[in-house]
Amino acid sequence: MRAMVYHGPGQAVLAEVPDPEITDDADVIVRVEATTICGTDLHILAGDVPSVRIGRVLGHEAVGTVADVGSAVRSRGPGDRVLVPCISACGACRFCREGHYGQCRGGGGWILGRSYDGTQAEYVRVPFADTSTYRLPGGVGDEDVLMLADILPTGYEVGVLRAGISPGDVVAVVGTGPVGLAAITGSRLFSPSHIVAVDHADTRLEAARLFGADLVVNNASGDALAAVQSVTDGLGADVVIEAVGQPDAFELAVGLGRPGARIANIGIHGKPAALHLEDLWLKDTTITTGLVDTSSVPALLRLLASGQLDARKLVTHRFAFDDFERAYDVFAKPADTGALKVVVTP
Amino acid sequence: MRAMVYHGPGQAVLAEVPDPEITDDADVIVRVEATTICGTDLHILAGDVPSVRIGRVLGHEAVGTVADVGSAVRSRGPGDRVLVPCISACGACRFCREGHYGQCRGGGGWILGRSYDGTQAEYVRVPFADTSTYRLPGGVGDEDVLMLADILPTGYEVGVLRAGISPGDVVAVVGTGPVGLAAITGSRLFSPSHIVAVDHADTRLEAARLFGADLVVNNASGDALAAVQSVTDGLGADVVIEAVGQPDAFELAVGLGRPGARIANIGIHGKPAALHLEDLWLKDTTITTGLVDTSSVPALLRLLASGQLDARKLVTHRFAFDDFERAYDVFAKPADTGALKVVVTP
Amino acid sequence: MRAMVYHGPGQAVLAEVPDPEITDDADVIVRVEATTICGTDLHILAGDVPSVRIGRVLGHEAVGTVADVGSAVRSRGPGDRVLVPCISACGACRFCREGHYGQCRGGGGWILGRSYDGTQAEYVRVPFADTSTYRLPGGVGDEDVLMLADILPTGYEVGVLRAGISPGDVVAVVGTGPVGLAAITGSRLFSPSHIVAVDHADTRLEAARLFGADLVVNNASGDALAAVQSVTDGLGADVVIEAVGQPDAFELAVGLGRPGARIANIGIHGKPAALHLEDLWLKDTTITTGLVDTSSVPALLRLLASGQLDARKLVTHRFAFDDFERAYDVFAKPADTGALKVVVTP
Amino acid sequence: MRAMVYHGPGQAVLAEVPDPEITDDADVIVRVEATTICGTDLHILAGDVPSVRIGRVLGHEAVGTVADVGSAVRSRGPGDRVLVPCISACGACRFCREGHYGQCRGGGGWILGRSYDGTQAEYVRVPFADTSTYRLPGGVGDEDVLMLADILPTGYEVGVLRAGISPGDVVAVVGTGPVGLAAITGSRLFSPSHIVAVDHADTRLEAARLFGADLVVNNASGDALAAVQSVTDGLGADVVIEAVGQPDAFELAVGLGRPGARIANIGIHGKPAALHLEDLWLKDTTITTGLVDTSSVPALLRLLASGQLDARKLVTHRFAFDDFERAYDVFAKPADTGALKVVVTP
Repeated sequence: MRAMVYHGPGQAVLAEVPDPEITDDADVIVRVEATTICGTDLHILAGDVPSVRIGRVLGHEAVGTVADVGSAVRSRGPGDRVLVPCISACGACRFCREGHYGQCRGGGGWILGRSYDGTQAEYVRVPFADTSTYRLPGGVGDEDVLMLADILPTGYEVGVLRAGISPGDVVAVVGTGPVGLAAITGSRLFSPSHIVAVDHADTRLEAARLFGADLVVNNASGDALAAVQSVTDGLGADVVIEAVGQPDAFELAVGLGRPGARIANIGIHGKPAALHLEDLWLKDTTITTGLVDTSSVPALLRLLASGQLDARKLVTHRFAFDDFERAYDVFAKPADTGALKVVVTP
Repeated sequence: MRAMVYHGPGQAVLAEVPDPEITDDADVIVRVEATTICGTDLHILAGDVPSVRIGRVLGHEAVGTVADVGSAVRSRGPGDRVLVPCISACGACRFCREGHYGQCRGGGGWILGRSYDGTQAEYVRVPFADTSTYRLPGGVGDEDVLMLADILPTGYEVGVLRAGISPGDVVAVVGTGPVGLAAITGSRLFSPSHIVAVDHADTRLEAARLFGADLVVNNASGDALAAVQSVTDGLGADVVIEAVGQPDAFELAVGLGRPGARIANIGIHGKPAALHLEDLWLKDTTITTGLVDTSSVPALLRLLASGQLDARKLVTHRFAFDDFERAYDVFAKPADTGALKVVVTP
Repeated sequence: MRAMVYHGPGQAVLAEVPDPEITDDADVIVRVEATTICGTDLHILAGDVPSVRIGRVLGHEAVGTVADVGSAVRSRGPGDRVLVPCISACGACRFCREGHYGQCRGGGGWILGRSYDGTQAEYVRVPFADTSTYRLPGGVGDEDVLMLADILPTGYEVGVLRAGISPGDVVAVVGTGPVGLAAITGSRLFSPSHIVAVDHADTRLEAARLFGADLVVNNASGDALAAVQSVTDGLGADVVIEAVGQPDAFELAVGLGRPGARIANIGIHGKPAALHLEDLWLKDTTITTGLVDTSSVPALLRLLASGQLDARKLVTHRFAFDDFERAYDVFAKPADTGALKVVVTP
Repeated sequence: MRAMVYHGPGQAVLAEVPDPEITDDADVIVRVEATTICGTDLHILAGDVPSVRIGRVLGHEAVGTVADVGSAVRSRGPGDRVLVPCISACGACRFCREGHYGQCRGGGGWILGRSYDGTQAEYVRVPFADTSTYRLPGGVGDEDVLMLADILPTGYEVGVLRAGISPGDVVAVVGTGPVGLAAITGSRLFSPSHIVAVDHADTRLEAARLFGADLVVNNASGDALAAVQSVTDGLGADVVIEAVGQPDAFELAVGLGRPGARIANIGIHGKPAALHLEDLWLKDTTITTGLVDTSSVPALLRLLASGQLDARKLVTHRFAFDDFERAYDVFAKPADTGALKVVVTP
């Protein structure tokens, strides 16, 4: 079959590889019908994820159809349409039993496209299939559902749910790339009174408006704190979501919060940030970090099916499988291409 | 001044009474600019609330302007536009300090129009003014705000917040009179996947659709449980809100819940209901009751101001103060008049 | 092997039956080293659980050693000492993934000794072994652990956790049979200021004191409400736990709560109770029911291992396997025998 | 009257000052019967709290008797025995109404001994008396109650409640000075399986054992992480409480947490700490900071009265009022004197 294979830093190559086979009774083989590229894939290509070895099939998001089923799989059968999310769950370890699949100690977690061959392929083997795939209801489109494999649950779980938004809250989102936009979309589900989007690129801020931010501020030229204060009687935001992954963005995010604020970090960081405890120690601040669990997928599927979650607007580009390398090029240069998420179909 | 005065069962009379005066340092006098009638007022007229004595000015909801201020009032001054909610709060007792103003042990709770002269008057004395009025932001209309005096917080706090709705949940609302509609409106703030409205009057069910129910069922002719099961894979609703106040409605509500359901009772009941513990003991059911605290008013005001809460659609009829008795007639016969809430302005 | 077999109402017979065998890849066979009898077993004998067919091996609580392992079992191996709790969990259905194993839709729930042959035998087949057994740490005794198979998690999860006890709360427990005593023990973990135990048998109330109640009241002769009011400034209890399963006990329990109380029902009820909504509608009451999930077993095991949970004091009688029928007799007549829990060992 | 007066950095002087008088209708005057010194007072003497002006009476903790009452005070009268906690609450601002008195925007918060004359005096004026004093039940001693003015609620609210301890959790406490010990005492109320205390002074670690730590480690010579891992299967602590206020202690605290840990900072910090987001971004960590609200005082009083909170063991030294300067000397040199809390009585 064809697949996108990691050939070392900078090289994701469309290559012919053997079809995957069931190697554990709990596996399924899924025929991939739509897949996408994640910012994490670019981190791998940058050489930042040394656990990914040369020869690994990339990708950790797919929609497809079950083609083959291991003997211990109970609730999936050939022909089932499924979502393959970025997180696999053994289902039995302490963390899985508490719903924290991203922290799975039983062999799951983020493994697809990392320690297992991934989803940017015609077929993918998914372990722990009963707890690592989601069967799809009728009436939901591949592209919508594909956004539930990683980006929407990431914005929703790590940003929105970890922070805890109540109706009427003022939410600030720092960073309006795809994950920040997903956080904005997810925030809307809790009816905040205002969503203030902060970025340094005007095109991204336009997108932020489209996704539900009602106040946008370019922090290259404007004053994010003043903008937040203007809608909070000078107090600061109830909730701040960091979706950049840089120390200065994190410190800005923390500074935007009111006394009692909840600050949720989604950004993938490569170095420490300064935590200004000399200001924060008495401010009743809560700061959270986290990896997605994809435990929210069932709820998000219900919202998709009832027409209340518009996932498709994250999809800006579509490619055939033969053009997968070009899809990477487009996705890697969002400033030029305006790419948010790209969908690749065989 | 003129006021609606309780003259005994069945008699609410527009009469001339003395203007209220400040009798406690924490009082304010509010000049009423809009008031309304509550279902509870009809209970009083029916003779069901014996603590209300003849001669009492009725009413516990108002928007107005502060006309006079007691010497111990800190944060309200003459000319302030305020909401007078149905609940007064001493601010210092155990319950008030925990946010449960409806249970105030320090002289507050539901007292206006009950043990204190009420708001259906040109002026009203409000005790504990710092904690029993809400100052209004600019840009919100009297009619919208007036709906925050009782009905919207009741639906939101006693129904929505007590039940605990998460995005994607299926919510059933039994009874779609004004309070049920307020519960539907409040539920929408948490983005349920479906709201199933149940009533025995088709006109009310039409209103339910308008307020955000996407599935309505007339339980006189249809099968409420089947309707709920149709959108929950046969399981039952995640959340059920009872907004009728009759044993059969409560029992229906409990029966619509899935294992693990939360059932919030808003209805004002006059007699016991049967609780089918022989079915429920193993079903992980949570049942809540409660009086409104109006603690959600600040959040609801923010939502009003940001245009995300459309309170005005509850207002079906408007009257001048001279027509107050007619307003009672219209409000008391919703089946004929289609009345939800009526607004009376001096 | 020998096992206690249900031969119809009133008849639990020690009989020779075939050894269980692995019939599903996820099964294990456990050699039983200690088992016990539950109040539910007496319900079965009374004919109240018609789903139990004649010939069924009884029992749903055991400590033992894994003797054989199905091919799909990942984390249990021969020789592992395990707890077999009353609830089996498929691990993959919606309810299991949310931790509500008692509501399992994938073939688990309370099945041992009901639709599967149970633990009152020399060997027992346990399905879904990875998620339906708990591996035991060193240093914990069989008898202590056995109390974690059902009774302690039931008191803790369905009573204590569902009600939500905070340090300093006043807790009332209605019914001080074994489950009520387990609820008292579990309540102590949250440091209430008072635990008021209510029963109509003085011997049980003595036991209640031993388990941690500091105020006991015989409601045959005394006034439970007055006792609760005496330690709550007349308000009523913060938390009430019902552990009887009779309408009058439930109604008493509800009546003992203060405004804002949480009432947790553990009792197994056979008929409806009256819910006095005419009093409760404005009292901010929360009532919960539920079946145990045994999801608290890991935490309770840690408390056992660290010496902070004294489970063994629930064990009043011990029997050899040959005396199993006598164990039933003793357990069935607690008023005469003083039995709380009996332990039977092969 | 006599009082301890701030005469500039390094100088707390026992001086004669005018008696306080009621200047606001909501004030009370309390005759001080016991007061104490806080670490914050030493910060003031170090010149670290520039808002404290020369001439200010120090102190923010007292037990005493109401001597005079403003005309707007409702629920306190002359002769009432009261606790004066470190936080005053206006009772009406947004933060007070949500229970966050420490963040009061209406003129309260930490004001005694800072912007108001404090409690290290024979009399103290307390503003907002209805919501800034707690009436004492019978049967509780002055010294016990005095520990509820600041140190116990600080350890309990900012450490224990903000972190969220569940029975069976493993808790690590970094820093075992008085606040750390208060956090250990408070943690015990939730029955953790282990409390690991970390400090660099063996005498403090001995105290930690006395207050309830079952595992202590000197991080000058030992390995705190290894100690924590030894009781958590190598995972790390469920909850970590930082009670030092130095960057290295904070970073150590964060490093002791397992994936999913809650880290509560109590320490008063003077400079930033490094937050290792490069490790934390995917670890589901929650970090909290906060100022005490003293909202837990009613619950802690109930625990004192029922004999479940032993506050007095925090008191190591007692002084008469004439020896107040010596009390400061002893309290300022705990390494030499072993002082935890000192009590001064007129």
